[in-house]
Amino acid sequence: MVNTKIQNTINKMKDEGIDNLLISDPSSIFYLTGHMYHTIERMCVLLLSVDVDPILYVHKMFPVRGLDEVGVRSHLWDDTDDYLTDLSHEFDLSKQLGVDKQLKSEYLLGLMNRGLKKMPIVGSYIIDDIRAVKSDEELRLMQVASDINDKVCTEIEDYIHNYDGDPNQLTERHCVEKLQQLYEQYTDEGFSFDPIIGFGVNATDAHHETDDTVLKEGDCIIIDIGCIKDGYASDMTRTCFYKKIPEFGQEIFDIVFEAQRRAEAAVKPGMKRSDIDAVARDYITEKGYGEEFNHRLGHFIGQECHEAGDISGSDHNIIKVGNCFSIEPGIYIRDKATGVRCENIGHVTEDGFVSFNKLPMDVRVL
Amino acid sequence: MVNTKIQNTINKMKDEGIDNLLISDPSSIFYLTGHMYHTIERMCVLLLSVDVDPILYVHKMFPVRGLDEVGVRSHLWDDTDDYLTDLSHEFDLSKQLGVDKQLKSEYLLGLMNRGLKKMPIVGSYIIDDIRAVKSDEELRLMQVASDINDKVCTEIEDYIHNYDGDPNQLTERHCVEKLQQLYEQYTDEGFSFDPIIGFGVNATDAHHETDDTVLKEGDCIIIDIGCIKDGYASDMTRTCFYKKIPEFGQEIFDIVFEAQRRAEAAVKPGMKRSDIDAVARDYITEKGYGEEFNHRLGHFIGQECHEAGDISGSDHNIIKVGNCFSIEPGIYIRDKATGVRCENIGHVTEDGFVSFNKLPMDVRVL
Repeated sequence: MVNTKIQNTINKMKDEGIDNLLISDPSSIFYLTGHMYHTIERMCVLLLSVDVDPILYVHKMFPVRGLDEVGVRSHLWDDTDDYLTDLSHEFDLSKQLGVDKQLKSEYLLGLMNRGLKKMPIVGSYIIDDIRAVKSDEELRLMQVASDINDKVCTEIEDYIHNYDGDPNQLTERHCVEKLQQLYEQYTDEGFSFDPIIGFGVNATDAHHETDDTVLKEGDCIIIDIGCIKDGYASDMTRTCFYKKIPEFGQEIFDIVFEAQRRAEAAVKPGMKRSDIDAVARDYITEKGYGEEFNHRLGHFIGQECHEAGDISGSDHNIIKVGNCFSIEPGIYIRDKATGVRCENIGHVTEDGFVSFNKLPMDVRVL
Repeated sequence: MVNTKIQNTINKMKDEGIDNLLISDPSSIFYLTGHMYHTIERMCVLLLSVDVDPILYVHKMFPVRGLDEVGVRSHLWDDTDDYLTDLSHEFDLSKQLGVDKQLKSEYLLGLMNRGLKKMPIVGSYIIDDIRAVKSDEELRLMQVASDINDKVCTEIEDYIHNYDGDPNQLTERHCVEKLQQLYEQYTDEGFSFDPIIGFGVNATDAHHETDDTVLKEGDCIIIDIGCIKDGYASDMTRTCFYKKIPEFGQEIFDIVFEAQRRAEAAVKPGMKRSDIDAVARDYITEKGYGEEFNHRLGHFIGQECHEAGDISGSDHNIIKVGNCFSIEPGIYIRDKATGVRCENIGHVTEDGFVSFNKLPMDVRVL
């Protein structure tokens, strides 16, 4: 007997006319089976079918235990096997195949060349939609991960404020090393993404990689950090200033802060994701900085820091109770070395958005 | 004017009848352009064409600088753009398209649904083959990364041998934390993969994840580690024993060690990759442990720890001068808690295999 999560997925496949679904996303396989496979470049796929029992194809070097308990068979392949041909024999090639959006083209083309009769379609939205509605237990775990994040964010701000070395020597890299130590007090599972601690002009690059830039008076400091705890991710951003706030920095901060506040307040189940993005974007545009807010407002989050689902102008799906996502507007003005981003993550209730992050978002001078 | 690496790739596309090639592998884009884009789930692809100048499609939030210098145009897409339609207008849909083996199915199916006239093919072997032959400068960098690895491997062995805490408290996790500190003396670029330090039965899982297992007398200790330095990867494995070597452990070690030595000695340019695998595998099989050597003999390595190219029974491509790969036979016997793997990485010269690792492979008792 398959477990409830797999049964729900198969039921939804029937509704959507997808007869077979090939899943390669390790987090989705973990969600469905309770087992995580890190197989690097070796194919690991879970085949769900409306006709036959689920089967996991995995290289024989990866230990498979406990799949029976969730009703999944396994096929252990070896380097010399023609595993794509074997896989193509597991399902009816004349029926509709859905694949993970992230399934490698190598496997997709391999199956198409082995006699698929119908054009495959992207079918991962089925499991993504199920994963996007968190259970109460998942929400509890999300809260735990964000409680840690709030604590560590305060601690790293204090570390910068009270830095006891030569203040002309405090670099981004020092902060990230400190950050790692701080998280290690609370979790063994590490960062949920490469943390961004960006000083001055580096704060204007929304995906800045840590370097040896030294902190200077008047710099803005973007702290965009998260960890994994018990398999669930946190993610938050606070923007601070060092020693003093330049007038222009304060002006930009106030706009971003207000945009974030408005977007959180606007969230209601049943509205389009894109309409939340618009609340923040319209406000920032009205203030004259629409071009400088150069990314989506938010992303879904759960076991992975970035899960399927955007809060952006291009995602018109409907917000549901139990959805978890970030709300993180930003304005980045490179030639004024001013970058500000304000981010909470939270979940949707009947009454609206409830932030997991409790740490105040007001500007801090460190 | 495009640079030499791109020109070589386009020349090879012509030879192979691939008119357009879509590359999504960040390391390949880095290899060709000198720029690394970590765009997480947002599409970043480089289109090479025999007809038109190369173009990089990347989300507008990722700074693009210096592409002009290598002859590459850029197209910055926004969340609300239909970027796959835009991309489909960049090349002739009636001509042969090649794609990265790892291009996401979402993009491949999106392009197929936008009017591709011919079945696309996997075309990444073109650039993989070029990347697989390292230049002298690349070999120099590979040597530097492995020199660090040799040093750190010795240091972590010494750390275990001289552990000054309660020896009943020394866990795998302690060793991995120490390992991180050791690497930080030599490189800012971190591990080339999640290191494996496995004690006792954990040594029998070729992809064991570090846990709190405590070291015990007579345990085998697998140390499989690597770092990145100046953009190039190292990777090596040594198997040690704690305090004493059980007779069975010695027997297994001797077989693996000899298999590794024979495989290294057999390497010659012009032979098939699978024939190198066979040298080690046949020897281990002859000794009665063929089933317990449950993975390929080796993998190609360079900018990434695992690059395209296997030393396995299924990869019959020809070994060339300048190829860099690992040779790492292993035997894993779970019910006897005995796991042994011996690994060097090296490069191929006219005369054969030259190991980057100089640290002796003989068994050490720690």
